[in-house]
Amino acid sequence: MGIQARNPAESGDTGADESADVAPLLTEIDHVAIAVHDLGAAIDYYRETFGAVVDHREVVESDGVEEALLKVAESYIQLLTPTRDDSPVAKYLERKGEGLHHVGYRVSDCGAALDAVKAQGGKVIDEQPRPGSRGTTVAFVHPKGAFGTLIELVQE
Amino acid sequence: MGIQARNPAESGDTGADESADVAPLLTEIDHVAIAVHDLGAAIDYYRETFGAVVDHREVVESDGVEEALLKVAESYIQLLTPTRDDSPVAKYLERKGEGLHHVGYRVSDCGAALDAVKAQGGKVIDEQPRPGSRGTTVAFVHPKGAFGTLIELVQE
Repeated sequence: MGIQARNPAESGDTGADESADVAPLLTEIDHVAIAVHDLGAAIDYYRETFGAVVDHREVVESDGVEEALLKVAESYIQLLTPTRDDSPVAKYLERKGEGLHHVGYRVSDCGAALDAVKAQGGKVIDEQPRPGSRGTTVAFVHPKGAFGTLIELVQE
Repeated sequence: MGIQARNPAESGDTGADESADVAPLLTEIDHVAIAVHDLGAAIDYYRETFGAVVDHREVVESDGVEEALLKVAESYIQLLTPTRDDSPVAKYLERKGEGLHHVGYRVSDCGAALDAVKAQGGKVIDEQPRPGSRGTTVAFVHPKGAFGTLIELVQE
């Protein structure tokens, strides 16, 4: 069966769905991240096929990636390629090949959103918000406990 | 003709990337689709953790899936679960487990976007646009030829 890290027992509350009324935390799909071997070729594909062009490009040394952001309305397609062999994205490409890597949701307060994940018994990768690309503040939520999806919380 | 329509293909530009000037076809990230085993549990997770609630729910018999759409700004989180064992999503879950399945990009003309993919040598799953959920017109682009990403073109 699937990964279901919901653990109501840890919430300290008695109602089964008392948290159904939490305020919406996700204000936008910030980006879909796609891991690729050849960043230039992927950029060419999106430009030549869909007319989607690079809005921002950045090497994020701490994550060992180079990314290109292609703007689509208020969201981005984030093309990602590793800059070194021990980068998590390098390992991902080796294990799973090219494709969808994670989804970034925009939030107004990354710390508060991360706390909400922890409060619901979710497993996090970043215990605290940290700097992301383009001046954002980010935190990753572990796919175990999030139905197999690596989630990034992005505060602009 | 005296009409000042801009047609990059006829602009006389001999540069190798004359198609860099194609008009933007993607108007929105329509949805990120996440394959899950237990739709109800996944819906609970997004509601209880992020306050994201179901905007639309539908069984799509032709695809053998039940989907729940959670609205985030102008986009959706699409939670997907198979309704029968021979559904492509059932096979995906068996092979890869839960997680990101595809990305849907909104386009104003699904047929034109599909033609653009074909014109660039892309491999398509749907040769022609077909009905999708919530009254949309859709077509899938094969991940082979799209850097490992299953892409859905969605016309509302």
